[in-house]
Amino acid sequence: MELTVYLAGQIHTDWRDEVQQKAKEKNLPLKFVAPQTNHDRSDDIGEDILGEQPGKVYKDDAASSVNNFRTQVLMQKSDVVIALFGEQYKQWNTAMDASAAIAMNKPTIIIRPESLIHPLKELSNKANVTVETVDQALEVLAYIYE
Amino acid sequence: MELTVYLAGQIHTDWRDEVQQKAKEKNLPLKFVAPQTNHDRSDDIGEDILGEQPGKVYKDDAASSVNNFRTQVLMQKSDVVIALFGEQYKQWNTAMDASAAIAMNKPTIIIRPESLIHPLKELSNKANVTVETVDQALEVLAYIYE
Amino acid sequence: MELTVYLAGQIHTDWRDEVQQKAKEKNLPLKFVAPQTNHDRSDDIGEDILGEQPGKVYKDDAASSVNNFRTQVLMQKSDVVIALFGEQYKQWNTAMDASAAIAMNKPTIIIRPESLIHPLKELSNKANVTVETVDQALEVLAYIYE
Amino acid sequence: MELTVYLAGQIHTDWRDEVQQKAKEKNLPLKFVAPQTNHDRSDDIGEDILGEQPGKVYKDDAASSVNNFRTQVLMQKSDVVIALFGEQYKQWNTAMDASAAIAMNKPTIIIRPESLIHPLKELSNKANVTVETVDQALEVLAYIYE
Amino acid sequence: MELTVYLAGQIHTDWRDEVQQKAKEKNLPLKFVAPQTNHDRSDDIGEDILGEQPGKVYKDDAASSVNNFRTQVLMQKSDVVIALFGEQYKQWNTAMDASAAIAMNKPTIIIRPESLIHPLKELSNKANVTVETVDQALEVLAYIYE
Amino acid sequence: MELTVYLAGQIHTDWRDEVQQKAKEKNLPLKFVAPQTNHDRSDDIGEDILGEQPGKVYKDDAASSVNNFRTQVLMQKSDVVIALFGEQYKQWNTAMDASAAIAMNKPTIIIRPESLIHPLKELSNKANVTVETVDQALEVLAYIYE
Amino acid sequence: MELTVYLAGQIHTDWRDEVQQKAKEKNLPLKFVAPQTNHDRSDDIGEDILGEQPGKVYKDDAASSVNNFRTQVLMQKSDVVIALFGEQYKQWNTAMDASAAIAMNKPTIIIRPESLIHPLKELSNKANVTVETVDQALEVLAYIYE
Amino acid sequence: MELTVYLAGQIHTDWRDEVQQKAKEKNLPLKFVAPQTNHDRSDDIGEDILGEQPGKVYKDDAASSVNNFRTQVLMQKSDVVIALFGEQYKQWNTAMDASAAIAMNKPTIIIRPESLIHPLKELSNKANVTVETVDQALEVLAYIYE
Repeated sequence: MELTVYLAGQIHTDWRDEVQQKAKEKNLPLKFVAPQTNHDRSDDIGEDILGEQPGKVYKDDAASSVNNFRTQVLMQKSDVVIALFGEQYKQWNTAMDASAAIAMNKPTIIIRPESLIHPLKELSNKANVTVETVDQALEVLAYIYE
Repeated sequence: MELTVYLAGQIHTDWRDEVQQKAKEKNLPLKFVAPQTNHDRSDDIGEDILGEQPGKVYKDDAASSVNNFRTQVLMQKSDVVIALFGEQYKQWNTAMDASAAIAMNKPTIIIRPESLIHPLKELSNKANVTVETVDQALEVLAYIYE
Repeated sequence: MELTVYLAGQIHTDWRDEVQQKAKEKNLPLKFVAPQTNHDRSDDIGEDILGEQPGKVYKDDAASSVNNFRTQVLMQKSDVVIALFGEQYKQWNTAMDASAAIAMNKPTIIIRPESLIHPLKELSNKANVTVETVDQALEVLAYIYE
Repeated sequence: MELTVYLAGQIHTDWRDEVQQKAKEKNLPLKFVAPQTNHDRSDDIGEDILGEQPGKVYKDDAASSVNNFRTQVLMQKSDVVIALFGEQYKQWNTAMDASAAIAMNKPTIIIRPESLIHPLKELSNKANVTVETVDQALEVLAYIYE
Repeated sequence: MELTVYLAGQIHTDWRDEVQQKAKEKNLPLKFVAPQTNHDRSDDIGEDILGEQPGKVYKDDAASSVNNFRTQVLMQKSDVVIALFGEQYKQWNTAMDASAAIAMNKPTIIIRPESLIHPLKELSNKANVTVETVDQALEVLAYIYE
Repeated sequence: MELTVYLAGQIHTDWRDEVQQKAKEKNLPLKFVAPQTNHDRSDDIGEDILGEQPGKVYKDDAASSVNNFRTQVLMQKSDVVIALFGEQYKQWNTAMDASAAIAMNKPTIIIRPESLIHPLKELSNKANVTVETVDQALEVLAYIYE
Repeated sequence: MELTVYLAGQIHTDWRDEVQQKAKEKNLPLKFVAPQTNHDRSDDIGEDILGEQPGKVYKDDAASSVNNFRTQVLMQKSDVVIALFGEQYKQWNTAMDASAAIAMNKPTIIIRPESLIHPLKELSNKANVTVETVDQALEVLAYIYE
Repeated sequence: MELTVYLAGQIHTDWRDEVQQKAKEKNLPLKFVAPQTNHDRSDDIGEDILGEQPGKVYKDDAASSVNNFRTQVLMQKSDVVIALFGEQYKQWNTAMDASAAIAMNKPTIIIRPESLIHPLKELSNKANVTVETVDQALEVLAYIYE
């Protein structure tokens, strides 16, 4: 049974490659989808398509509309959502995606470092499983196929 | 037509009192509900009810389960959600509540300072209205009754 | 049994007053809600609250976000939706509201002149009842209480 | 990941061929579905199947019931909806389809010329993305696969 | 706790009066709603509002659109549905209403004579409770308040 | 685009074979599913599996539980529902299936002879399309692929 | 804000009286509803209404249909569900009610003794909060009003 | 038409192997999924992934979060649910899964020995079909394909 996994969360490290590599090593029949991970492209996509906007808030709104479109398409096609929080940045997108996934009844795994236990406690409590490492998340996915 | 408004967001300032006071001055028939705004009580509620837990992560999980219970009860009774982001703290709870409210089709207003435009752009794009001040949010609510 | 009726549609005539007056004459226990019917206020509401915008498309987007917020609040509180199409203007708002109401399983009445039968045929077919006059719509509402 | 795209909107130009041609050039794994684009067939389908009707309103109602059946089947099978508004005609069908798509949580792109910004402002605000050209819509679709 | 009960089913006997009278005798806090029970009015309501139609099928379609509107409004406001089948007539309306109520998760009671056990077996199996008399249905309602 | 069509309705004629034969002749990529059409097997299935029951009502309830299970599985897998009413029998199953399909937002076609216009008028009004012959229903299905 | 609380679970002790008494002492604006707590009446209700059944399984099925009807009515009217598990009996009803409540997005509290931690672990994990005593459950309810 | 069947219920006998073997003998195009049936692995999975927990309740909560994740993924992919109750153990998981499946509109079969008729009566009444043996459940599945 092939499953599609949406990889929400930070785009400043290559954790998605790590997930895909390790899934391959474990021979898990998983397909992965994700947000735009090229940060500049993600920030510029609104202006890239719609042309220059009259200021920061408008540029951001244009970009976010295309990013949200992409996320909605891909998350609706997914069977599982993994959301990874890193130690830096606001990452409200990640919290938004995880919360939306939970509200859509998508089984959801959160990956976060120990340092973020407290600020993420309510979201962790609503997710199915919260782990600290990519390896642990993979073990949860692998458990489906045991 | 009386409406119930859930006031999500930071609990470190008295913005909720300000909202309620100004709604009263405008004679708007609004009833307000909110999360626990006593920060210590909110952090301790799990141990207050269930007894001492064996460490931080367990204390936090116990607290969050009661806080999430409260939020779910009150948000389901609400007609409108306002989520305020301040300049400090992670505030992933606020992002989680706003995202859940949007997924539940609750009409949602976000209040955030100009400095947070960029990190909140995707969430702002999904909310109905994003403003910068409590006064503006009140004007949006008042507009329902014009 | 009191019912709340959302009156979608054109804001260039006083048909809403007529509906309310006739409902009163018939002693129907109905409460009416509606979009902002002051056209200028409706067009300006975004800038009135958020301040001047850098052009027409941004002014319109700001206004529409507040108008959509209002409509969503009031339509969710309604038991019935009436949408009136006049002979002038694009009135895509009206088509949007009627279609959204039908998708939300709100019992829906369309009022349209004979001249608009053809362009409205698919929407009429999806609505519960299509009539040509306010009086006929009132008769449909009165029939609930016979 | 193959996606199905419903192309709502005007049937007086060959914009759907353009969309499909350009998607092919970009090697996007998209499948397109659409309403009946033969205008006469669309208007006559009710009488073609059910026989002559006793007047215009009945002919239109018969046709619209078959057209709505077709749209409901195809839109439910779609992952994305694109709705194009041209400068002529009432196009309430297009507004109805776009609004229904949004209510069904289908990620939705609106294409409309600059001249229609104002009358479409509330619908644009509810859609995910609004663009002015077929090329821009294709760029939004292509962005899913980057 | 006051409950609203929709009384679907045949309109050729005064069973609804009997239900209401007996509920009153038992002091049950129930409010009852029902379809139009004046058969002629129910058949003519389309033409009464929309004017003469060009034949039987069009008269019937006009009437049914108003009747369905009424049923949708009242059933959505109800907490419980009772559907009574008599020994005569097709009563497909009753089967339609009971099936729709079950699909809407309305707790549903069917009343039918012994002679109809076989043709109603699948619908009975989907309803919550099937009884043979109005008195039994009242006992089921009274049981809620024990 | 292959579609699955559930053929609800009477099991006393071979209309399902006719539908499938004609769909094949038209080269429509349709897959058909249906209730048990062996009447005796359908009536006996409860006792066939669960053993003899203590009377008619219990035999019927046992059979209907298995029939309803089958219908629920197959209708949930279907994209379109066709319900055919013949001139004989109560056919409340057919009305129940059509009403459930409509409530589940399955695009629905009703086939009924002219003699049944009046008793089926409310159900016809809720279905997408009502026709009188199998050929007409096939034309509606074929229209999807034009 | 008055809330309605459904008290699912064992009917062999008077824990419901205790809950209501303590809620009153705390001046909590709560209304309580519950299943039939007279065990014999609950077991006999099917035969009490429908007459003698031909054996145990039929008597039980008749009773359960009326009990399920009652539970469905009252749980749909509730804002919160509390499910108490005692140390004896199978209590599959309680597990069924708690699981249904969670699936219906009713905020849910489980009360269970320490001895039942292991067999209830998956259900506890899905509920909002799990406590060991009635007093703790009351504290959770009281927390809503702080 | 291939269907996926989730096999909920006790993990102390090899009844799942029996189901699969017999489905194969009958050439039924069924795919089976199930919870973790290695009891120790199921109990330890939380600590296996997350590391040692500070006590039984925490170990159990960690395990149940991963087990619930697995169940949610697999049940959402299933077309049918079979839940088997044995004569021993609390089996609240099984009741929880069956109740959740019913609430998710998954067609559901319960298998239980005669001795459990009484404690399972309400759950049996809500399921589609209740049988006593694996063979009977297979007959119900086979009936779909007749």
